[in-house]
Amino acid sequence: MPHIALPPGLPGIRGAMAFRPETAHPLNDLAEVLLHEANSLTPAERELIATYVSYLNDCHFCQSVHGAIAAAHMGGDEELVRRVKADFAHAAISDKLKALLVIAGKVQRDGKLVTSEDVAQARAHGATDFEIHDTVLIAAAFCMYNRYVDGLGTVQPQDEALYRERGKITARDGYVNTSKAYLPATPAKN
Amino acid sequence: MPHIALPPGLPGIRGAMAFRPETAHPLNDLAEVLLHEANSLTPAERELIATYVSYLNDCHFCQSVHGAIAAAHMGGDEELVRRVKADFAHAAISDKLKALLVIAGKVQRDGKLVTSEDVAQARAHGATDFEIHDTVLIAAAFCMYNRYVDGLGTVQPQDEALYRERGKITARDGYVNTSKAYLPATPAKN
Repeated sequence: MPHIALPPGLPGIRGAMAFRPETAHPLNDLAEVLLHEANSLTPAERELIATYVSYLNDCHFCQSVHGAIAAAHMGGDEELVRRVKADFAHAAISDKLKALLVIAGKVQRDGKLVTSEDVAQARAHGATDFEIHDTVLIAAAFCMYNRYVDGLGTVQPQDEALYRERGKITARDGYVNTSKAYLPATPAKN
Repeated sequence: MPHIALPPGLPGIRGAMAFRPETAHPLNDLAEVLLHEANSLTPAERELIATYVSYLNDCHFCQSVHGAIAAAHMGGDEELVRRVKADFAHAAISDKLKALLVIAGKVQRDGKLVTSEDVAQARAHGATDFEIHDTVLIAAAFCMYNRYVDGLGTVQPQDEALYRERGKITARDGYVNTSKAYLPATPAKN
């Protein structure tokens, strides 16, 4: 039962976004740039960072939907998503992504915990400044999305099939296009 | 010394935004809607929520600049800003704002800590669903902005006069207009 009167039938962040389209647009634009647009980090890598941070924040909706999007980008490999959440150091991912997940995990607790050694380690495994920037902002942004979804007491379905279905669509079409199904268009700001 | 090569001469979030204008635009659009556009919560009330959350997250840059913006909206009352950070329950603010700050403080830790009693208390003091929504999202958003600013190791000046000067400008012109001084325009997304 949400804390405020959110439109029914829209789980998780979608109900909150439909309640306040003016803030939904920049929230979707940010996710689109960070997770879906072309980037030297693959969509799967970026969705895994988002999923890991959402797991650390214990947000059921966000870790389920972004885990499903990550899996969709990896041919349906849900086991790898589970492994990254539980023990990424031993998951079948690159050393670069492991180093970026260390940074993301520190940002999740407090940005000030990131050290120059953490950054040097990521660079040693080939991470660019751009990729380090995006890792920090993805981790920071999910500290927002997670708190938004949980703080309003949104409906968070338990059925994994729902997330799997939606994950495939969002992996294919992105955040802005997917949101058009439940958001009215508003004029862009700049 | 920032962790990555941010453009020099731009403190705090401005250096990070100039490094990556594609994400800066939605970040500024979000701040514009939440803090500057017309709202039944005053700009001062919303900036106080942002300042309080940034104080809880111990982000020097964000609590200084948003504290300065809040003060600018209140005729320069910096003492009230300090009081809200240190002990809002005894500050000269409305009972409604106190109830919203309770919610914001819980969102800062974990959105799941917000209870229906917290929300009922805010409603009893006149808060609407819209205002409760915006309080949750402002608190959540500053958990992002704070981690973004701190996680990149941005330059955070200690000179209060700098924040006071910038606070007056942002209070008057808003986030999107102010950002035009250091951000190239990019096409809007939707």
